[in-house]
Formats: sequence, C-alpha cells, structure tokens
Amino acid sequence: MPEKITIVIVGGVAGGASAATRARRMNEAAEIILLEKDEHVSFANCGLPYYIGGEIAERQKLLVATADLLRKRFRIDVRANQEATRIDRAAKQLDVRDHLKNEDYTLAYDKLILSPGAAPLVPPIENANAPGVFTLRNLADADKIREHAVKTSARKAVVVGAGFIGLEMVEQLHRLELKIVLAELQPQVLPPLDPEMTYPLEKALRDREVQLYLGDGIAGILTDERGNASGVKLQSGEVTTGDLVILGLGVRPNSQLAQEAGLEIGATGGIAVNRFSQTADPDIYAVGDAAEYPYGPTGKQQRVPLAGPANRAGRLAGEHAASGASAEMPDVQGTAIVRVFQQAAATTGLSVKMARKLGIDAWSVTIAANHHAGYYPGAKQLVLKLVFAPETGKILGAQCVGVAGVDKRIDVIATAMQFGGTVRQLAGVDLSYAPPFGSAKDPVHMAAFSACNYLDGVDLFLDSDANLSGQQVVDVRTEKEVSAKPLAGADDAIAIPLDDLRERLGELDQDRPTVVSCGVGVRAHVAARILRQNGFADVQNLSGGALVREWAIAQRTAE
Amino acid sequence: MPEKITIVIVGGVAGGASAATRARRMNEAAEIILLEKDEHVSFANCGLPYYIGGEIAERQKLLVATADLLRKRFRIDVRANQEATRIDRAAKQLDVRDHLKNEDYTLAYDKLILSPGAAPLVPPIENANAPGVFTLRNLADADKIREHAVKTSARKAVVVGAGFIGLEMVEQLHRLELKIVLAELQPQVLPPLDPEMTYPLEKALRDREVQLYLGDGIAGILTDERGNASGVKLQSGEVTTGDLVILGLGVRPNSQLAQEAGLEIGATGGIAVNRFSQTADPDIYAVGDAAEYPYGPTGKQQRVPLAGPANRAGRLAGEHAASGASAEMPDVQGTAIVRVFQQAAATTGLSVKMARKLGIDAWSVTIAANHHAGYYPGAKQLVLKLVFAPETGKILGAQCVGVAGVDKRIDVIATAMQFGGTVRQLAGVDLSYAPPFGSAKDPVHMAAFSACNYLDGVDLFLDSDANLSGQQVVDVRTEKEVSAKPLAGADDAIAIPLDDLRERLGELDQDRPTVVSCGVGVRAHVAARILRQNGFADVQNLSGGALVREWAIAQRTAE
Repeated sequence: MPEKITIVIVGGVAGGASAATRARRMNEAAEIILLEKDEHVSFANCGLPYYIGGEIAERQKLLVATADLLRKRFRIDVRANQEATRIDRAAKQLDVRDHLKNEDYTLAYDKLILSPGAAPLVPPIENANAPGVFTLRNLADADKIREHAVKTSARKAVVVGAGFIGLEMVEQLHRLELKIVLAELQPQVLPPLDPEMTYPLEKALRDREVQLYLGDGIAGILTDERGNASGVKLQSGEVTTGDLVILGLGVRPNSQLAQEAGLEIGATGGIAVNRFSQTADPDIYAVGDAAEYPYGPTGKQQRVPLAGPANRAGRLAGEHAASGASAEMPDVQGTAIVRVFQQAAATTGLSVKMARKLGIDAWSVTIAANHHAGYYPGAKQLVLKLVFAPETGKILGAQCVGVAGVDKRIDVIATAMQFGGTVRQLAGVDLSYAPPFGSAKDPVHMAAFSACNYLDGVDLFLDSDANLSGQQVVDVRTEKEVSAKPLAGADDAIAIPLDDLRERLGELDQDRPTVVSCGVGVRAHVAARILRQNGFADVQNLSGGALVREWAIAQRTAE
Repeated sequence: MPEKITIVIVGGVAGGASAATRARRMNEAAEIILLEKDEHVSFANCGLPYYIGGEIAERQKLLVATADLLRKRFRIDVRANQEATRIDRAAKQLDVRDHLKNEDYTLAYDKLILSPGAAPLVPPIENANAPGVFTLRNLADADKIREHAVKTSARKAVVVGAGFIGLEMVEQLHRLELKIVLAELQPQVLPPLDPEMTYPLEKALRDREVQLYLGDGIAGILTDERGNASGVKLQSGEVTTGDLVILGLGVRPNSQLAQEAGLEIGATGGIAVNRFSQTADPDIYAVGDAAEYPYGPTGKQQRVPLAGPANRAGRLAGEHAASGASAEMPDVQGTAIVRVFQQAAATTGLSVKMARKLGIDAWSVTIAANHHAGYYPGAKQLVLKLVFAPETGKILGAQCVGVAGVDKRIDVIATAMQFGGTVRQLAGVDLSYAPPFGSAKDPVHMAAFSACNYLDGVDLFLDSDANLSGQQVVDVRTEKEVSAKPLAGADDAIAIPLDDLRERLGELDQDRPTVVSCGVGVRAHVAARILRQNGFADVQNLSGGALVREWAIAQRTAE
C-alpha cells in the first residue's frame, strides 16, 4: 500500500477530475479531496454549446463522471460549491469557503493540485451584467442560455467574439432558429487562423444570414425599459438589436489563488510550472486553463486553454502527487478544431500571422486537394496550409478547412510536430489509403512536397494575398476557367493554358519577375518548372492558386 | 536547362507515372519514354473494385492521367502495349516488344526506371484459366469482371482469398446482388491483422450472408459442359458452386526483367534497391510492387505492394534519375485500410502474429473507445490494438476496426512510427478535439496510456485469447452486464461489480494469479490497481475486456 497522504485538488472539471482519478489509481491509501466552486464536477464543458442548441438532447449526457461515481468508484471526497480562498504554504493548508453552508474552514494538504480553470472575460462596459447577457463556462450558464433562448421569446442573438466558443454558439443558436449577429474585434472570424483560411467559414456564416461585424468590438449593452438586454453598441458606433447577448471574448486564467500564495505567474499570465506541473512550491501543482504548458512551436511556456492538454496534464499531476513520480508533461502544440455549419476548421501550432507577431521567420504553402480519392464518389475539397521554418524545414504549424477529413490531416501534422518533425519527414509519412478514405498522395503529402520544393528552390511560393502589381502574372488555367473566374487582384494577368505554355514562351518576358497561378497550384507548379528551366530567373507560384487568392483578396478587402 | 538525357520508364501506373511526371518537372530537356505493357497508363487501380460494383459509375474517372495529358502537358513519350523484354546493361539499351504491331525494337537509355508492378498469383490448379475465372489487376480485368457479373446471368461468385482486394470484391459483388462465397487459406479474413481483430469483419460478412470458408484453400475450378467455371473445389474437399470466380491470392513481383539482367533480388523477392531506389546498377532504378523498400518496424528491406509507397518512391526515383539527386526514400510502415460494408479495418506496422513469426518480442494492448465524444450524438465504438516493444516502448504497429474514425487513428500512429516513436511519446500527441471530431482523451491516447501502464508495471495486460483456466478471474462488470453476456472462455469467473470490490476483497484469494476483466478494460484497470495495492501479487488486466474476449474466443474456436 502506498503512502497515506492528503491530496487536495482545486477545481473538479477536466484537469482536476483527471488528476483525482489517476491519483486514486496510483494511491489507494491517499485521502483525495476534490473542491469545486460550482455545482458540477467532471462535466463536459466542450459539449455545452451543443446542449444549448439541442443537438445533445439529454442534459444528463454532459455529466461525464458524476460526483456519486467519483465517490463510489474512486473514493474521492467530492465537495461541490466549495471554493478555495487562500493557500497557507507554510502550514500546508487551505482556506475553503462552503457556499452552501456559507461557512469557512481550513483543510490540510500534503499535495495540492490547482486546476481552477479560467473565467470568461467580461469587458468593462455598460450593462454587462444585464439580464439576457451571458457568458458560457459551466452547466449553470448553459441552462440559463438555453432557458432564455428556448423558453422566452428571444428571436435574435448577438454573439460577441468569433473564437471557438463564439462560432459554436452561432451554429447552435441558428439551430434554434434565432437570427444571429456576430461581432469580432479582429477583422476575421477565428483569429488563430490566417485570415484567408477563414473565408469559407465567413461564407458559411453569411450563407445562413448571420450578420457579421468584423473589426468591430463591443462598446456597450443596450437595455429595454425593464433593464433587459435589447442589443449591443459596437465601437464603430454601429447599433444592433438582440434579445440575447453571448460574450465569447476569451478567458482570463483563475490564477489569483496561486498569485496570492506567492507562486510565480508566467509571462502569459498562467501559473508557472515545471514539466511535472509543479509550481515553485514542489507540493503545489497547477494544470489546465490557469496554468502554462511547454509550447512546442516556440519552446517557451504559455497558456493553452484547451481540454486535451488539461486532461493530460491533470492525469500526470495526479500521478506525480500520489506516487512521487510521473512522466513529464509533453509539449503542447495548441491543436484545435471547430465546426461551423458544414465547414470544419482546424489548426495546430503557429499561423503565419502568429509567427510574424513572435518574430519567427516562417514560410508557408497552401494546397487544395480532395479528402479522399477524387475518382471515388463524395470527394470533398479541403484546403491545407503548412507553416514551416525556412532553413531547417521544421514544421511550425498548420491550418485546414473543409467539410471532411480536416481533423485527420491536422492530427497527422500535429503528431509530426510532437517529434519536432520537418516537412521533409512529413513528406514520407506512410498513411492508410483506400479510395473511400484517402489518396495515394494524401493532402498531407501534397503540402509537404510543396514545402520541400520551396526549401530546395525547386518551386518558390508567393503568399496568396501578395501584391502582384508590377509583376508578370501568368494564369495557366484554361480559357474557360479564366473567364468564369478571373484571378482576383491581378487585372493584367496573362492567360496561357498550361498545355500551350511551351509553345507560347515567346509571349512572356523572361527577365521580369513572374508569378504563375492556376486553379489551386498544381498546374502552376508544372508551369513554374517549365519557365525556370527556360531561363526565367525569378518565378514564383501563387500559393493555393485562384481559389485561395480569391479568399485572400476578399479578406484583405474586409480589413 | 538541365542535361539532355534519355529516361526510360518501364510500367506506367502508380510508380511509373509518378516517376515520369516528376522527372519532367525536374528536367525539361530529358527525353522521357514511358512503356506500359497493357493498354492504359496511370489508371486508378485501387478504384477497380468500386468500378466493378458500380459505386464508381464512370469508367472515365479511373483514368487519373490519360496518355494524352501525359503527352501534352509533360511531353512524355507514352507507349502503351509495349513491353520491355530484356535489359542490356552494358549497352544501356532495352529490347521492347510492341504488342500492337507485333514488332520488337531496341531503345537506348541513360537512366532506366523499373516500375513493372506485380502479377496476380494464379495457383497451379485445374481449369485456372477457364472462362469465368478472373484476377484483378488492370482496367481490362475490371471490364471483363463487370461484364461477366452484370451482363451475364451470374448469380453467385466465389472469391478466393480474403485479403484487401478479395474483401473489396466481396463488398462490391454483393452490391451487384450476387450471392458470395469467400474462401481463405488462413483461418481468418484479412490475414495481416491479428485474428481477434477480424471478428467484426467476419460478422459484417456473415450478416450479409456471405458464406465463409476459412482455413481452406482452393484445390480446383469446376467447369460446366461448355467449359465455363461453375464452381470451386476446396482443399478440404468441400465443393461450392458459382458462376464467377475471383482469385485474390496476392501478387508475385514482376522482377524477371531485372533478374535476367543480373540485378540483385532481395530476400522477399523484390528487386533490391538503395535509399535512392537504385539497383546495384546505379543507372537502373526500381520502384513499386516489384521492388523492396526500407521497412520501418524491422529496419530491413521488404516488399510492400501498396499504392502509397509506390507513388512516393516513383516520384523520388524520377527526380533522382532526371537531376542526379533527390531525398532518400523514407521508411515504409505498411499502412493499409479496407472497408468491408460498414466496417473499416486498418493496420500499420507489425501485428502480434507477424512479430512472433519474425521472432520480435512484442507486447500489445487493446482498447475500445468512441470515435468522438460519447456524449455527442452518433459516437461509434472503435477498437484499437497497439503493438510495441517491451523494453523501449517503441511502437511496432497498430490495428484498428470500427465504422468511423479508423483511418485517423492509424494515420496518427503511423506518423509516430515514422519518427521511431514510442508509446510514451504517443501518449503526449496533441490532437484536435471538439465533440463532433474526437475526445479530450482520444482512443490513441487511451491505447498509449495503457501501453505506458504496462511498461511501468502499473497494469499488466493479458492477451484477449489467453487460456484463463487455473487463474482467479474477476469480472467487475455489473450483474446485469455479466448475465447478459458472460465472459467468454471463463466459466468460473467471479463476478464482483467494481464499485463493490473494495468491500468484497475478502472473497478473493490474494495469493492466486488473478485476471480482472470488464466491458472493454477501463473498469478492470481501476480494479487491477485496487487489487495490486491490496496485496494481490499477480494481477493482470484482460486486454479489451469482455468485448474483445468474445472476438478472440470466437476466432480461436474457428481455428
């Protein structure tokens, strides 16, 4: 029997619940106390939007592990509605507020695991707390929103913030047949992605008559005569009505408790920890949205408020606290996915935008390909952007958007990143292929091949939003394609179908900087190779072709 | 402009076509001649079964790149119906038989790329060439089978061989409403998988009234009075009628041409090559089903007759031949997938069975989990088996079966294998998660966690087909579950629901070797931890629980 120690865990959802159950499995003798300031432990917070929209019909399903199960099966002393208010590190005890009994008490610990999560950001604006204004973090929030949306006469919702939760809420409120307004301070939805990659999402939103205000933040909540929210005023001065307002503005880590106990807070505002999730005080661990993780693409510590890392870190911290040892917390890549109506958008690691902000030199290629063999019925196009370091070819990140197969491609790339993989190594991954599932050359390979061509100087890529003026732009699509959809932002493009290019080289000036483009970049690659080998000194391939160019120009205009 | 050389490519499908187009992109000056002994180049051979079954309706779609496109766009001298018959290495020339003109000619080369593929195995049995007996390798074969199945009165097909192509043919012939008999020499379908993992496939087949003869090979073809195939005689003596016989018995590499030229043939019968796909003669390359590849799980060279490696190796060989340099061919893991009605089954690397055959020490864990969050509607269970090295934890292989999400999990694991990854590293991969796409703890994580527990001695796993007699078997499912489906092959199992286990420890003998089991292995893990910490010295967790146990016992009985 292992050591009889007392492990206190603050926060009973993803990280905390994982820590508690793993701690029990590693230590039958330990006393394990799980404090949760709200009503429910171990609920599926990622499922809340789907419950609100009714796609998850039974509320019961969101309770992944009930307090009763944790007590019976894991002998965990689950204390809901109890909030840790102070850590006395010297005495190794905790002040706890029992919100049900309105009492305070102290609790001694040998090991303390902090998994207090994060709180939704509420801006300092007028009427931010008016009835009808909601944030979404727990089951009680979801119940209130659902009640308001379903049982009252709400017909129009304003969602503020077009991040993951904002977008999921838009989709689910649309499912409830509310009209939707979506406002986002950034000039694009889903800010972690590069702007052009969000075009299909915006289109999906507009197709469902979601009214978008991009590049516009919230300035205040409007209320009716009874003081209920009746709309939103934006920073631009724009006013929009709405009887339900969802604030999806991101989260603030609940790091106060740790900070007040003198524990170090990291550069990104989360509780600083080592690879065992230990804070500066080795008897105190921190995991989940309040903590920082080793972030793969930069090698630095940062907050990554996502469920996956919280679960994994909680499990490891629970093991370490209970047994004195565990594996180290591996790098986190920040892999995430969201569905917006039929579209899925996923990301891992750095976007080009983020890399620039961090001063990290990044190249990228964007390809479009079918999610499975094109000759097999039902193939859907997906667009994949691969971001990598120019010299080493190390994969820095990826983004993918499409209606099918998006998660698989991002997961494969995220896995390669876990090994510090390069685009050269990615080009060699041996993926499963049969016509209903993939292609002999998967989109992952196509992106990696392009990136290797870029690194080797075989084909140089130009960002899809590049300014093409002054360059010789050669559009190698067929005449029919070109006239149906001219290349955006390239009025003087010279149209020469690829199969005629060799004969018509004389129409081009080989000394001018030249950009080639086609539908999605495949034919342009062949064209670029022909030109380069025929004495054209400066040839670039417009990444993602006319397809992604259209997205990029639309997003540039939007800005 | 690069060097003007002549590159001759033998074989115009996956590897050959990839080589030809990449060679052209790297070298505009080269003369590139593509010889194909059959009628069509660059057709989608993996799509043939789906064309036969009518799921791919247009034959045209199978012609990925037509000879015309290869000529026009890539200036490739495509010569269909022309077969290389002899290589004169000293003179660097090739004898070619033009099957259309019935003429022979010689062709000089600077670089020669062999991509002749493989030929379907036809056993030396009576009437193997009778009308109505088919193998499937090219479009002409597919046309003939389709004609026979659709346009004649064929009502019953006998498929011999239950590998990838055999299973795809069963599915597609069933789609054409033929009755199906499937015979396989191995005692299971899909021999690359471990037997228990094929149970759901066999069930899917039996559910559609496919008549299975397992562990029984073909002895002869029966014919009617007109000499047409009318059935099959099996080695057991069993006779089955059928007016269409498909031989899906695997392939034999077309290595004669190379062998006759004195080039080295590897231990597995493929043409031996280095990492640049060069044979012993540096001006002669070999790729595709006729060649060998570096195989990741063993580090040795072996044949892997799959489309993905053929395409990648062809592309690299084409580059090397055309420009004198290329990246090295990366390890191949043998990743493959097949759909059998609703079930998908995928594999990468070694099964336990294969590892044993090779004398490689392998451990495995098998888990069952939902393909996305269980609380989100539509979650489907998949079963994932992870095979790894006992000391290092290096991933050796994986198998997955289920109706959704199978390809993604195998691709993630295959990617980790590409980096020589261990199960410990796999436990840390940062995968995308939102309820419609995955789980915060993905099936990949659950399998890796189990494997790490095994390596660390936290929980030891017993193979699902183990003989349990003489051991204390504890079934920790609820009474209701146990009575609904008792644990297979464990008549004297002691049923103690997990949540009562701590109170009822006195009913168990802590000195007896003990095996715990539950539904799929999750609760048994908790139970094992309780027992081990309470003085039970020898405790093992039955991998995959009652679910996979049922599969394993059914398959063991079948053998």
